[in-house]
Amino acid sequence: MRILIAGMDGYLGWPLAQHLTARGHEVAGADVFFRRQWVEEMGSHSAIPTPPMTERLAAFRARFGREVRFWEGDLREYGFVERIFREFRPEAVVQLGECPSAPYSMIDAAHAVFVQTNNITTTFHLLFAMRDVCPDAHLVKLGTMGEYGTPNVEIPEGFFEIEFRGRRDRLPFPRQAGSWYHWSKVAGSNNVMFACRIWGICATDVMQGVVFGSRIDAMGDGGPLLTRLDFDQAFGTAVNRFACQAVIGHPLTPFGKGHQKRGFLPLRDSMQCLTLALEHPPQPGEYRVFNQFEEVYDVTELAAKVKTVAGGLGLSVEVRNLENPRKELEEHFYRPDHQHLLDLGYRPTHDVETELGIMLRDLLRYRDRIEMKREVLIPDVRWDGRRQKVGYVAPEYAVAREEPPGCP
Amino acid sequence: MRILIAGMDGYLGWPLAQHLTARGHEVAGADVFFRRQWVEEMGSHSAIPTPPMTERLAAFRARFGREVRFWEGDLREYGFVERIFREFRPEAVVQLGECPSAPYSMIDAAHAVFVQTNNITTTFHLLFAMRDVCPDAHLVKLGTMGEYGTPNVEIPEGFFEIEFRGRRDRLPFPRQAGSWYHWSKVAGSNNVMFACRIWGICATDVMQGVVFGSRIDAMGDGGPLLTRLDFDQAFGTAVNRFACQAVIGHPLTPFGKGHQKRGFLPLRDSMQCLTLALEHPPQPGEYRVFNQFEEVYDVTELAAKVKTVAGGLGLSVEVRNLENPRKELEEHFYRPDHQHLLDLGYRPTHDVETELGIMLRDLLRYRDRIEMKREVLIPDVRWDGRRQKVGYVAPEYAVAREEPPGCP
Repeated sequence: MRILIAGMDGYLGWPLAQHLTARGHEVAGADVFFRRQWVEEMGSHSAIPTPPMTERLAAFRARFGREVRFWEGDLREYGFVERIFREFRPEAVVQLGECPSAPYSMIDAAHAVFVQTNNITTTFHLLFAMRDVCPDAHLVKLGTMGEYGTPNVEIPEGFFEIEFRGRRDRLPFPRQAGSWYHWSKVAGSNNVMFACRIWGICATDVMQGVVFGSRIDAMGDGGPLLTRLDFDQAFGTAVNRFACQAVIGHPLTPFGKGHQKRGFLPLRDSMQCLTLALEHPPQPGEYRVFNQFEEVYDVTELAAKVKTVAGGLGLSVEVRNLENPRKELEEHFYRPDHQHLLDLGYRPTHDVETELGIMLRDLLRYRDRIEMKREVLIPDVRWDGRRQKVGYVAPEYAVAREEPPGCP
Repeated sequence: MRILIAGMDGYLGWPLAQHLTARGHEVAGADVFFRRQWVEEMGSHSAIPTPPMTERLAAFRARFGREVRFWEGDLREYGFVERIFREFRPEAVVQLGECPSAPYSMIDAAHAVFVQTNNITTTFHLLFAMRDVCPDAHLVKLGTMGEYGTPNVEIPEGFFEIEFRGRRDRLPFPRQAGSWYHWSKVAGSNNVMFACRIWGICATDVMQGVVFGSRIDAMGDGGPLLTRLDFDQAFGTAVNRFACQAVIGHPLTPFGKGHQKRGFLPLRDSMQCLTLALEHPPQPGEYRVFNQFEEVYDVTELAAKVKTVAGGLGLSVEVRNLENPRKELEEHFYRPDHQHLLDLGYRPTHDVETELGIMLRDLLRYRDRIEMKREVLIPDVRWDGRRQKVGYVAPEYAVAREEPPGCP
């Protein structure tokens, strides 16, 4: 299958190109290298080195014995997007070309506007190019479980059947996102859903949980085939940041009470799931939603796992909760469905500890790179608009766990 | 109260400035005159002449004996917005500074991107300026009933209490908008809701029905105080377009079967409702939603009313349905709540016929202006992406009304 990856230089895009190629697909990609700039703007760099795309492409060719076509450019320019589509004629398009950071979107008005307009515009351009060039292609759009927020009811996969005042309908499940970034993903989901309805395009909208991990099998021994791994407040996600903290002996830092529950999945599961979606496209005109994660974990529970696995590698770390820079519930009900991918054959990697061990060993080689940027591990972008480093909370605040009503 | 109107040069903004001033408020406004450009781009002009803002402001001063402060500029520039806020320090802000056209947003990729990014950015800038300059101010954001679409259940005002799999929550009512424009309004609503949650701003989100009519009492005898009235496919709304068609003897043109139901309200009711919202602000941090319309009408029913009233003025017109350029249900259940404004004291103008009579008499003076642009009355922007004039449908298609299941 000819698969175009928008955002091929990113954390997911680069391994996905390899994973799909290893499975025999013809992959092409586009990127403008924004992610590299954004992380630099946050005063950081990837823990794992990110050689220029030319080196990445050469290593790719050496390992897989074939080229991956690559276009450098800005997906906010429709002419650029349309040209790629006319030259490559993709049968499937994976939208990873969005800015994926909640804190980055919360910095100020300019960043809020940038994240929402960038994400909305790039998705629009993929949709219009599909309509005009390859209307039978399948769009796999990366959304986020964060679109749903933390409602007090179970979370279905995109839609739910409800009765309201004696009448019934199947409706989109309400979204209650938690940052300007997350709301940009809601806007993208809405636009994709509507494009399917009016143009007969088909799409899979992936509500993905928090991804962690440094590698997939296709990468082999690494080098330029390894993917980036960020640990700054904006682009480092929870478990990856904990792992980076562990390798330099920095406390692991859940926010607030630390009992936020989220769906998590290892990088290799993300690749497996995206591939399942691609290889089992929906019907023409169908808009389907997959909740994509391995299991729901409490953030403190994951910090404890990182601490344990790190201990086994001789790394001694403590868990110290930080004042929460976000506005979010720190204890809440959370039970999202995630059946659709299991039905397609998703086999979850249940062994989180092994996955953490692999990542920690990878990161130990880059200890100096993390140490060099140690200060980015404490966030200063606050949801109330202030830009000021958060401090550690008193230990009794963090451990004061109350089971919220109705929790299992 | 110091009230800032973003988009003061528009169909609603100009009468609102007068209505609020007549009630003793201190009004200021901003506009970049995009609406004039957009209508020109559609090959049309307002049926009622729109003199330059300098003339409007002079007439305003003559009638109300006071100045209305006005800033010309683009709300997409944050520095411009912030400067207005620092100079005027509004106690309330009315967001009418968005592109209000579904067909305009459906023209092509560039227009879809423009409408969504313009609308999202201008609202963002108002929110950030409120947060940073006047956090106690009240935002009245113009949304649209079109955000909800036409679900098969009743439509509450913004939120609903539901039970799902044995648990209960109060959630935002799902949105199923029908154009890129309508989805931009959903995105704006979501952003405003979230700003209230994280910053403690208060806002009223007005899900407004389709407004019709040419005047309000505050305008007096008219001239530069009259508001614009558009009849092109993009900026002319249903009833206003019917009225313009009637005065030049053009068929009145419902789309498709013509049994789309929508909430409608006269211009004077829109002014009354916006004023009620402004004069009864919500609590700090509160985000409230008002469904703002007088009554639900079937489009064909309204066309028949226009025909009758026009007949009384000696204008003979027929109703001829057009092929529907949109993708929408043409027969459906529709029962939205609209209690909140009634609770605040809204007294609906139930006499639609009188309102239509006033508008038709106003428009008869501008018959030549409408006749000159006669060709814009037939739409060519289609939801499937083609740009091609629609034709009339066979009469038997239009009259084949089936009561959809469950309709009252």
